Amino acid sequence: MAKKNAFYAQSGGVTAVINASACGVIETARQHKKHIGKVFAGHNGIVGALREELIDTSKESAKTIAALKHTPSGAFGSCRYKLKSLEQNRAEYERLIEVFKAHNIGYFFYNGGGDSADTCLKISQLSETMGYPIQAIHVPKTVDNDLPLTDNCPGFGSVAKYVAVSIKEAAMDVASMCDSSTKVFILEVMGRHAGWIAGAGGLAAESEGEAPHIILFPEVAFNQEKFLRKVKSTVRKHGFCAIVASEGARYKDGRFLADSGSVDAFGHTQLGGVAPTLANMIKSELGYKYHWALADYLQRAARHIASGTDVEQAYAVGQAAVEMALAGKNAVMPAIVRGKGKRYSWSIEEAPLEQIANVEKMMPRDYISRDGFGITEKGRAYFEPLIQGEDYPPYKNGIPQYARLKKVMAEKKLKKNFRV
Amino acid sequence: MAKKNAFYAQSGGVTAVINASACGVIETARQHKKHIGKVFAGHNGIVGALREELIDTSKESAKTIAALKHTPSGAFGSCRYKLKSLEQNRAEYERLIEVFKAHNIGYFFYNGGGDSADTCLKISQLSETMGYPIQAIHVPKTVDNDLPLTDNCPGFGSVAKYVAVSIKEAAMDVASMCDSSTKVFILEVMGRHAGWIAGAGGLAAESEGEAPHIILFPEVAFNQEKFLRKVKSTVRKHGFCAIVASEGARYKDGRFLADSGSVDAFGHTQLGGVAPTLANMIKSELGYKYHWALADYLQRAARHIASGTDVEQAYAVGQAAVEMALAGKNAVMPAIVRGKGKRYSWSIEEAPLEQIANVEKMMPRDYISRDGFGITEKGRAYFEPLIQGEDYPPYKNGIPQYARLKKVMAEKKLKKNFRV
Repeated sequence: MAKKNAFYAQSGGVTAVINASACGVIETARQHKKHIGKVFAGHNGIVGALREELIDTSKESAKTIAALKHTPSGAFGSCRYKLKSLEQNRAEYERLIEVFKAHNIGYFFYNGGGDSADTCLKISQLSETMGYPIQAIHVPKTVDNDLPLTDNCPGFGSVAKYVAVSIKEAAMDVASMCDSSTKVFILEVMGRHAGWIAGAGGLAAESEGEAPHIILFPEVAFNQEKFLRKVKSTVRKHGFCAIVASEGARYKDGRFLADSGSVDAFGHTQLGGVAPTLANMIKSELGYKYHWALADYLQRAARHIASGTDVEQAYAVGQAAVEMALAGKNAVMPAIVRGKGKRYSWSIEEAPLEQIANVEKMMPRDYISRDGFGITEKGRAYFEPLIQGEDYPPYKNGIPQYARLKKVMAEKKLKKNFRV
Repeated sequence: MAKKNAFYAQSGGVTAVINASACGVIETARQHKKHIGKVFAGHNGIVGALREELIDTSKESAKTIAALKHTPSGAFGSCRYKLKSLEQNRAEYERLIEVFKAHNIGYFFYNGGGDSADTCLKISQLSETMGYPIQAIHVPKTVDNDLPLTDNCPGFGSVAKYVAVSIKEAAMDVASMCDSSTKVFILEVMGRHAGWIAGAGGLAAESEGEAPHIILFPEVAFNQEKFLRKVKSTVRKHGFCAIVASEGARYKDGRFLADSGSVDAFGHTQLGGVAPTLANMIKSELGYKYHWALADYLQRAARHIASGTDVEQAYAVGQAAVEMALAGKNAVMPAIVRGKGKRYSWSIEEAPLEQIANVEKMMPRDYISRDGFGITEKGRAYFEPLIQGEDYPPYKNGIPQYARLKKVMAEKKLKKNFRV
């Protein structure tokens, strides 16, 4: 096996643990210097490859690389850039392979969701036909938890933990004030297409009747009357009502609650957000005092409350990707497989990219309670292990100390620039 | 000294550490059983005293009381209920003293902000004139950090840490995506009257040029042109711009940015919120893609990321309050006094309530940088020690384990009910 360099890139929305996967890739590659030369990282993801902006990770100390394991965000930069189809823009794929060739890159590790699995597959196929075969391995990552063939996706467990802990704490706050103040609290969370993140909020309820009392899923058509009835009965029973609402919550006709068509002072239409839409509904129909929070990026960046299981798995898929490459695999993804025993266990197996690219895994209906406002025991059994364990970053002066990279760029070898 | 019972109540908005003060009061009282009988806690604050709903804390185990130290929210319930002036409603004060008398309560510990300091003082004065003297000690608590005579207020350090850590993490997220995606991120934080909480966000910047790039304080009149210029120059220089905005940010004429007069689909006026108002401004004037988060209750409930210093101080003021009571003090508050040395140190001293009630401590202008968008070195030196140290709660199944009280009510002694 001839020694080749490797290329690693981060794709799409970043997470609290994507850098743990980067750490897994780089540390494992460094253990196999006979077969893998340098690991180059794309500056701002795949765009870095197109522009030939390759970060030479060999210039980073072992300590810095190790610190990636506890560093949120995309340390090398990520991007929202979907390569067009081969027919529409063959030039882009050819450019990538040209850059890989110029830097003697034989391994391509692409760390992302469904779109990047697709790109990864195409690179593998095209490089073959172009006579410069590249082993392309997809490293799974997405807070949306919607990749098929893997039990769960690295990045999801930490958002899940953030949401469960946050709604628990905020609900306790409301509970202690509800006699004379706020009666309804709404936390809006990510998940435009699927309710995985909102569903994980259900873990905050450790026994019957505990908050959150209502979860709104994109999978369940929103029925205003039924919702308000549930809010009212909850406030009557418990004194307050805590709600986790997915940003993807929608009406039967598919219209998002967030698209409520508010108009600002200048007459511009505003995306309302689910939480304020619900809050207004509750205020005007039931008259309860409300508060709401929008976690936005805080939820996926919250490395300070990352799930220990998630961190381990994120590292493990990075490590396994390199091991698969060394074993001669191509167009595969390390998938997380849940053990069959009663006690949670997991292992890594290889999954073919053909079956992953462009497939979205939705939340099973039997994870959602019959009334559509909560999770079932089956759902809980799925979610619970994924938020286990705490893995705190180191602190200095009260602030977490995250990795700071030098980001030394490899010298360019190609004459042409490529416009992205 | 005749043995008397004690009454403890939580007042106003709760915090991540107010229960640590409760723990300090109860544990210390339990060490002095010769002089202090039972500690009754007001169910939902002072309202519990008016209604004669007294939680008998002697029914809670030592373990449960100890767990209060790591439990956010108001474990006994709090309230937003300001007693009217003596002239306006003498009956309320008389009722309180009647209840205290009926339950042989000689010590009143009131855990809150400026309003409750005022109430505390009045109880002390009136009980004297009514011939049933009560030692009233105020236990400081407020995320707003606006009590005078104390260097800082328990509750503030933990919000400060939450805000600094959150903006750091979210800004890293944005930094890694800004080449092709979001360029501006805004975190809206509490502080209607003063910029203490927003200012603490400045601690996230560990060196020059780091996020947050802009902080908006209520103390500095908002100038749209200057603000947009700063956003633009920051994006040009760093590729993105991270902003912490106080909910109290306002124009020169005193109008809040949050009162931007948006109108929803039904023609109702909506409170815009500072963050979406700024976001719209940036979008329409500069065209940048933005995201924003509203932390709301999450910030003051976030015990999972509490400041170790804050937890210690919250406990210490509770403990000191009881010690002051035992020393015969009355109408005082344990204040936190910062040591003069270079290395941060603090001690507890007694401060007279006359000088505390109804006085608001604003943020000194020299904590805010000249351009009004950041904190000075002096500000940093003030804030930094307050977020030091991590004090994690215990976890089970990935979820923090917070105290669960039995809340056994003491038997009522009075015949009359009192309407609140």
